[in-house]
Amino acid sequence: MKERVALIESALAESIPAEWNVPERLKDAMYYSLLAGGKRLRPLLVLAAAEATGAAFVPKAALLAGCAIEMIHTYSLIHDDLPAMDNDDFRRGRPTNHKVYGEAMAILAGDGLLTHAFYTMSEAAAASGLDAPHALALVSELSAYAGARGMVGGQAADMLGEQGVTKLEELEYIHLHKTADLIVCSLRAGARIGRATETQLEALTLFGRSLGLAFQIQDDILDLTGDESKLGKPLHSDEKQQKVTYPYFIGLEASREKVGQLTQAAVDAVAGAGFAKPGRLLEFAQYLMNRDH
Amino acid sequence: MKERVALIESALAESIPAEWNVPERLKDAMYYSLLAGGKRLRPLLVLAAAEATGAAFVPKAALLAGCAIEMIHTYSLIHDDLPAMDNDDFRRGRPTNHKVYGEAMAILAGDGLLTHAFYTMSEAAAASGLDAPHALALVSELSAYAGARGMVGGQAADMLGEQGVTKLEELEYIHLHKTADLIVCSLRAGARIGRATETQLEALTLFGRSLGLAFQIQDDILDLTGDESKLGKPLHSDEKQQKVTYPYFIGLEASREKVGQLTQAAVDAVAGAGFAKPGRLLEFAQYLMNRDH
Repeated sequence: MKERVALIESALAESIPAEWNVPERLKDAMYYSLLAGGKRLRPLLVLAAAEATGAAFVPKAALLAGCAIEMIHTYSLIHDDLPAMDNDDFRRGRPTNHKVYGEAMAILAGDGLLTHAFYTMSEAAAASGLDAPHALALVSELSAYAGARGMVGGQAADMLGEQGVTKLEELEYIHLHKTADLIVCSLRAGARIGRATETQLEALTLFGRSLGLAFQIQDDILDLTGDESKLGKPLHSDEKQQKVTYPYFIGLEASREKVGQLTQAAVDAVAGAGFAKPGRLLEFAQYLMNRDH
Repeated sequence: MKERVALIESALAESIPAEWNVPERLKDAMYYSLLAGGKRLRPLLVLAAAEATGAAFVPKAALLAGCAIEMIHTYSLIHDDLPAMDNDDFRRGRPTNHKVYGEAMAILAGDGLLTHAFYTMSEAAAASGLDAPHALALVSELSAYAGARGMVGGQAADMLGEQGVTKLEELEYIHLHKTADLIVCSLRAGARIGRATETQLEALTLFGRSLGLAFQIQDDILDLTGDESKLGKPLHSDEKQQKVTYPYFIGLEASREKVGQLTQAAVDAVAGAGFAKPGRLLEFAQYLMNRDH
């Protein structure tokens, strides 16, 4: 795992070529957030899904696809932290992008990363050797899962919901789109590069939805019971921001049970889809359920 | 021309499918700016460039590519108008997106349009019938011209330059990237769909750079000498925002001459590249030089 993370870090560090004629401050702002560490969960899932297919796949294609999705994830954090959105001053223990570079540059760094994600995904598609329809599916799915019907829609619902999320279903819509969609996208991208069958892609969609939702509920739980030094942010921030959470609706214990049930559903989906090497995917499910940050 | 604009308008109006499960307010905010009229210059250039090749091309592919680029253009206007950027309250005679929907939703509407542009371009690429490398080039070029080394970089330089653009070269960098790059992208996308040669793509790049720069200088001139009711915004807004312009550096008369020279360079580039039907492209050059809004 550590070795893979190192590979991903070095691919990300090279993702904006030195020869680009780009204002330095914009490039700095993009790299500031892109290279801020983090679990690199999404690129790791791309690699794990490609590996699960058991097919010969081009590692470079999977690595590039992982970088593309990490760029989307990173831009979304930059924009979500803006004063007009969640107004956060710290992220992973460091000042947020706009606190360092100013709001204008943070908006543009986000736009730049979002745009470059599609360049990087088209490079992944070219490296994958897939034919035109399948190569283009890598691009169009990234857009679908990241855009208005995906992650952006989830964030919009979250913003609108702050004026009062009243139902658990609304909270679930937010989590599914804000978090799960990009996880599903990562899995499908890796599997597509590994030449997965339609059935396998569908199994991974269910795996990713369940895991993404579990991941988010676990976030809610950690915000109440975690270790501040491991989380890199103060506890009870949801409460302070008057955000409704799973524990708020159904209590802490039922939330923990829900994480367990979703993890099992994820495991079952993948176990039944005839993957040649599903081991690492299944490890992920366990890891996410038991994480402390 | 009117017929083509009507085609583009109707394609844009259908570009966000009704069956999408998207927060209504986000969808409204996206459509508010996407369907706010305007010249539709970029989609028209895509169609003109495809036509110039004289090749049989799929009109649907060119129309979709035009919509994709118009989405990029529209998102850039939404984000540029934000309080942290140019802080504009009006655009084309209507309140700007964030004045109607609030800053958070305006940021997300921009992100949504930017992301959907790549879905739409991948649909265009699929409809074009091009092979994988050429289909993916449509996507990667959109990213390159719209991103940090293109339009986003131009806007960043513009923001940074407000603390003092001191040279004409810096202003030219801003115009080339902020405006010309997306025009070049439109021309190349249309020509790629029409199976243009490399030489023709290069000629269109020069045509677009010259025309894009001329377009922006014409904007600077119109801000000083235009008709407010046609422009849909008050005169002398550059001066009020302390923006340096071509007329500021070289005077009004030399700026007008420069527009003429650039237009001629554009015409020469296209005239010498062996296009089968360059007529409409050449009309564009004349139209842009003589426009009053």
